Amino acid sequence: MRPQEIIAKKRDGETLSQMEIKSFVKGVTNGAWADYQISALVMAIFLRGLSLDEQNFLTEAMLMSGERLDFPDGCAPLADKHSTGGVGDKTSLIIAPVASACGVFVPMISGRGLGHTGGTLDKLEAVKGYNVNLSTEDFQRIVKKCGFAMTGQTTEIAPADKKIYSLRDATATVESIPLIVASIMSKKLAEGLDALVLDVKTGSGAFMQKFEKSKQLAEALCKTGNACGVRTEAVISDMNQPLGKYVGNAMEVFECVKILRGEADEKMLPTLELSIELAARMLVLCGIADTIKNSKLKIKNVLDSGEALEKFRQNIELQHGDSKICDNPEILFDKDLIEVKVTAEKSGFVSEIDTTAIGESVSIIGGGRIKVEDKIDFSVGCECVKKLGDEVKSGETLGVIFCRNETQANLIYEKLANAYKIDDEKPLGNFELIKELI
Amino acid sequence: MRPQEIIAKKRDGETLSQMEIKSFVKGVTNGAWADYQISALVMAIFLRGLSLDEQNFLTEAMLMSGERLDFPDGCAPLADKHSTGGVGDKTSLIIAPVASACGVFVPMISGRGLGHTGGTLDKLEAVKGYNVNLSTEDFQRIVKKCGFAMTGQTTEIAPADKKIYSLRDATATVESIPLIVASIMSKKLAEGLDALVLDVKTGSGAFMQKFEKSKQLAEALCKTGNACGVRTEAVISDMNQPLGKYVGNAMEVFECVKILRGEADEKMLPTLELSIELAARMLVLCGIADTIKNSKLKIKNVLDSGEALEKFRQNIELQHGDSKICDNPEILFDKDLIEVKVTAEKSGFVSEIDTTAIGESVSIIGGGRIKVEDKIDFSVGCECVKKLGDEVKSGETLGVIFCRNETQANLIYEKLANAYKIDDEKPLGNFELIKELI
Repeated sequence: MRPQEIIAKKRDGETLSQMEIKSFVKGVTNGAWADYQISALVMAIFLRGLSLDEQNFLTEAMLMSGERLDFPDGCAPLADKHSTGGVGDKTSLIIAPVASACGVFVPMISGRGLGHTGGTLDKLEAVKGYNVNLSTEDFQRIVKKCGFAMTGQTTEIAPADKKIYSLRDATATVESIPLIVASIMSKKLAEGLDALVLDVKTGSGAFMQKFEKSKQLAEALCKTGNACGVRTEAVISDMNQPLGKYVGNAMEVFECVKILRGEADEKMLPTLELSIELAARMLVLCGIADTIKNSKLKIKNVLDSGEALEKFRQNIELQHGDSKICDNPEILFDKDLIEVKVTAEKSGFVSEIDTTAIGESVSIIGGGRIKVEDKIDFSVGCECVKKLGDEVKSGETLGVIFCRNETQANLIYEKLANAYKIDDEKPLGNFELIKELI
Repeated sequence: MRPQEIIAKKRDGETLSQMEIKSFVKGVTNGAWADYQISALVMAIFLRGLSLDEQNFLTEAMLMSGERLDFPDGCAPLADKHSTGGVGDKTSLIIAPVASACGVFVPMISGRGLGHTGGTLDKLEAVKGYNVNLSTEDFQRIVKKCGFAMTGQTTEIAPADKKIYSLRDATATVESIPLIVASIMSKKLAEGLDALVLDVKTGSGAFMQKFEKSKQLAEALCKTGNACGVRTEAVISDMNQPLGKYVGNAMEVFECVKILRGEADEKMLPTLELSIELAARMLVLCGIADTIKNSKLKIKNVLDSGEALEKFRQNIELQHGDSKICDNPEILFDKDLIEVKVTAEKSGFVSEIDTTAIGESVSIIGGGRIKVEDKIDFSVGCECVKKLGDEVKSGETLGVIFCRNETQANLIYEKLANAYKIDDEKPLGNFELIKELI
C-alpha cells in the first residue's frame, strides 16, 4: 500500500483500517516511509483526529514494532504507574516500594527530564551508585526478587514511537490526544502489565494546562489501556504548583525517604497524598484490595511498619545504590550549596504560581535539561515554601534556591519571584490536589 | 522564526504574515527547513487553506526564490499562455505563432509530459533538430527576433517550487488550490509578463475533473496573477475528450501545421477554436485589439495570410528544427508505424470518453512518460475518430492506434476500447469546448 494513499485517506477525514495503520507503522520502522511522509500523515491525524479503533490499532501496531517484556511466573500481578510529567513530581519513588510491599510487582521503565519537567531516572541517579541502565535480565531478576525495579528502556521498545515522536517534536504536532495516547501506551503495554494507573497532570506546570484537555487525555488513555487488555484508571491531579516541598533531583529523593520513614513535614504531605491515591487504585485494580478504603489501610500499614522503606532499601542495594540514604537522608544534601531566599515584594495571598517557570529555573541552574544532551547537577534545586492560598508578608520567603554560587542565583531570582502572583484578597480558587478520578 | 511556530499557526487555522511566509520559503530554498517540516506545513495548508493574501505572498516569495527573466526594450507587450494540462492539448504551437504574428512577444517556458498528459517540450522535440534547451541569452534573442521562443526552464526559476512540488507529490498534497496557484504562478510570473491567459481544463482527462473545482482554480489563478501585476484571464475548457484529432507528439505537431496552413479537417477544428479563443483574449489583454471580436478578426487575418505559419517557420529555424515540416507536414508521420483500428462492440452513441485512459494508453506504447525518467517515442499515438455525441455502428472505428507492432497494440487495445462508453440513446450532455470565461 503506497504511503500517498494512506495519507490521502486520513487527509480526507476517512477512517484508516487496521491494515493501513499497520502498514504505516511498519513503514516507519523499516524506513519504507520517508520522514516527510510520516510528518504529513501525522499532521493529517492532528487535524482530522483518530477514532477510538484507529487509536487502539495505532497503539498496538507501535507496541508490536519493538520488543515486549516477559516476566517469569510468580511475578503477578504486574502493575505500573505513569505520569504525564510535572514539577516536583516524585511519587514513583514512593508508589513502587509501597505497592511492592503490598504484593504488586512493579516493572517501572522511566524517562529523563527535559525542559521544565523532571524525570524519575534523573532523581534515582542522585543516589550515589544507583544503576538505571539494567539489562533485561537484571530488570526481570530484580522485579522478581524485591517486587520492583526502575530502569531506562532496556530493549528496543516501540521504535516506531521514537521515530514518530522526534518528528512530532519538530513539526508542531505533539499536542494531539490520539498520538499522545499511542506514544505513552505503546511503551507501557510493552511491560506486559495487568494494571496501569495514570497520573494525568493539569495546570500551569502540566503538559496539558487546561482541565478539559487533561480530562480528554485521561479518558482516551484509559479507553485504549482497557481495550488492549490492561485494567487502566487515571487520576487527574493538580499541577498549578510544584508537588510537595522540593524541586531538584537529590532533594526530591530526600523528600521521598522522609515520607517512607514517616517523617514527612506538612509541605511534603501532598506528595504522600497523591502517592497513596495512585497506589490505592493500583492495589484495587490488581485485586489485592477490594475497596479504595481497604487499599489505603494496607498502604498505611506498610508505611507505618517500615516495610515500604525496607523495599526501597532492598531495591537500592540490588541496583547498586547507596542505601545509607534510607537511614540518613540528610546525606543527600550537598553541603557546598548556597541558599538564596526568594522573598515577597508585597503582602497578600499567593493566588497563582507559574509552575513551568519554577521547573525551568531549576533546569537553568543545572538541575534539569534545557537540551537533551545537557548534563545534570543532581544537588541543586528549590524548596517551595509558600503554596497557593498561603498568606505572605512583604519580605517573607516564598522559596529557597539551593545552588552553586550567587551568579546562578541571580540567573533565576527574578524568574522565580515573578512566578508567584500575590493578591490582596484571599483567592477563592480550587487548589485541591486530586481533581478527578477517571 | 522557528519552523515549529509557523507550522503551529497554520495548524491552528490562523493567518500567516508575509514575514512568516517569506521565512518559510527562504527556509525551503536554503535548507533551514527540513523536508518533514515542509511537508507538515504543506499538509496544514492543504487542510486549513490560505487566504488570498497568503496565497499571493506565497506566490511572490516562491517567485523571488529564484531568477527572473528580463527582456530587452522592444519586447513589448509580453504575454504567455498556460494550460493546466490535458490530452491532445497542442494549442501552444498555434497560439505562439498567431500571437506573435499579431505583435505580441511570447516567451514560452514549457514543461514535459508525465502520466496521461502531454508536454509542449516533447511535442517540439518531435520536430527533428528542434532545440528546447535554450540559454537565457538565446531565449531572449529569439523572442526579440521572431516574437516567440519555446524552451524548458532556462535558469533557476522558483527553486522553492521545485522542492515543495516534489514533496507534495509524495505526500498526497497536490490537489490544493492555493498551492497549485503558487506553483503555477511563481514560475509564470518569472517571465516578466504583461498579460497571461490560462487554459484551465475540466473533465475526465483534466487534473481537476469537477467543473466547480476547475472554476475555483481558474478564479484563484486570475486573482493572484492580477494582484501580482499581470493582467490575467482564464478560459475553462472541456477535457471530457481529447482535444482535436491526434494524441501523440509528432501527430499533434502535424495537426498544428495543418491548422496553420489553413488545411484543418473537421476533427481538428476544436484545436483551432480553443487556440483562437485563448489568443484572442491575449491580444485584448495586451491592448493590441479592443474587443474579442476584433481580436478574432486579426487572428483570422494572420492565419489566412500565412503570416502565422511563417512565424512558426522562422521560429523552427532559429531553434534549429527542420522547417520543411511547414511545407510538407506529412513527413512528421513515421512510415514504419502500423495502424490498428479500435472498433465499437455495439451500435449507439458515444456518451462518455475516459480521456485519462486514452492519454495513459499513448504513454504505455512510448508516446509519453509513466515515470519521469522514461524515454519518448515521438512518432506513436492515436487518432481520435469518434467524438462525444457521435453515432457509431457496431464494428465501426472509434480510434486508430499508431504503434510499432502488434504487441504494443494488444497492450492498450482493451483499455482504449473500454474508454468509450456507448449508449443506446443520443446523450444530452454538454459537450461544448468552452465552458466558461473567467
